[in-house]
Amino acid sequence: MKISARNALKGKVVDIKKGSTTAHVQIDVNGSIVTASITNEAVEELGLHVGQSVHAVIKSSDVMVSVP
Amino acid sequence: MKISARNALKGKVVDIKKGSTTAHVQIDVNGSIVTASITNEAVEELGLHVGQSVHAVIKSSDVMVSVP
Amino acid sequence: MKISARNALKGKVVDIKKGSTTAHVQIDVNGSIVTASITNEAVEELGLHVGQSVHAVIKSSDVMVSVP
Amino acid sequence: MKISARNALKGKVVDIKKGSTTAHVQIDVNGSIVTASITNEAVEELGLHVGQSVHAVIKSSDVMVSVP
Amino acid sequence: MKISARNALKGKVVDIKKGSTTAHVQIDVNGSIVTASITNEAVEELGLHVGQSVHAVIKSSDVMVSVP
Amino acid sequence: MKISARNALKGKVVDIKKGSTTAHVQIDVNGSIVTASITNEAVEELGLHVGQSVHAVIKSSDVMVSVP
Repeated sequence: MKISARNALKGKVVDIKKGSTTAHVQIDVNGSIVTASITNEAVEELGLHVGQSVHAVIKSSDVMVSVP
Repeated sequence: MKISARNALKGKVVDIKKGSTTAHVQIDVNGSIVTASITNEAVEELGLHVGQSVHAVIKSSDVMVSVP
Repeated sequence: MKISARNALKGKVVDIKKGSTTAHVQIDVNGSIVTASITNEAVEELGLHVGQSVHAVIKSSDVMVSVP
Repeated sequence: MKISARNALKGKVVDIKKGSTTAHVQIDVNGSIVTASITNEAVEELGLHVGQSVHAVIKSSDVMVSVP
Repeated sequence: MKISARNALKGKVVDIKKGSTTAHVQIDVNGSIVTASITNEAVEELGLHVGQSVHAVIKSSDVMVSVP
Repeated sequence: MKISARNALKGKVVDIKKGSTTAHVQIDVNGSIVTASITNEAVEELGLHVGQSVHAVIKSSDVMVSVP
């Protein structure tokens, strides 16, 4: 499968915190932590677990730019 | 200024392509290219240019996770 | 590849309109037209063309509900 | 009221799961399940309930395209 | 029609700039300018024009918070 | 720090409701209530509290327009 989203950052799951409906998955991408807020169901269906190799996927229209 | 968006990835602008209203800014983040689709006005107001140090900023609810 | 986005609607590309940076892809999903606003680069990289079978993929946090 | 969001898919609510702040509403759209992640307050204010006819509304810039 | 999006800010259209596929609509909300990036098709279908009374509608999961 | 997001509405925090992972922050912007759905961690890191002066920040591609 290929997807139109332009950004896929390779990393490793370092933490998963499930809430009542929404989970926060932390991914170590080259030493930076990227947090994904996804459904609990997605965590289960993908079988996400700490240590797993994953990609953080982001649509370009959801990326902002900041300058100091 | 501090913002609630959890993800700020440090990088360098490597390309800016302005369209008629929307611009695509490519940022090299540790060797991965992150594309931001933002308004032309934002490009001008921030004075974005190739070689500049910036952050790619992403709200956690806009990050997905993929597995192979 | 599997992705955390919960919604993947099967359809067929019925129109592609490229702008200067952003393209609009219209997908017929069971008789309803779904419009995706994606980058021109994604259209090219996926080799999108009219008549092609694709999925419209949407993160749950981007779906709203309306009532009459 | 008319809204700029291009995509409105007609369906029926098949499940509502309220979390502590965020609810997941599942909508049957022609046999495909679409999940909307919305606030508990929206569920209450719209009076959403299983069996109800609703639309899943999605802005075009939030739709991605995938190919096999 | 009622929609789950929590935020609807009443204002007046002060500028519309159409690009090749994407338009920028500027709305004066109590003296602050809110910019909406929507499709040209939406501008036409809603018959948007300068001086018109509209609402800027935003899903809560797309709102961030910043502090000085 | 300056950010590409075009919309920053000045307001005051009037309510914070933390869920298990996601918090809802209500901001009074000139008498209109704007709800932001952000992570609990962001609420803590920014030290958000009722009465505080903040901005609600929104990317233009996340703003829709509605007409009566």
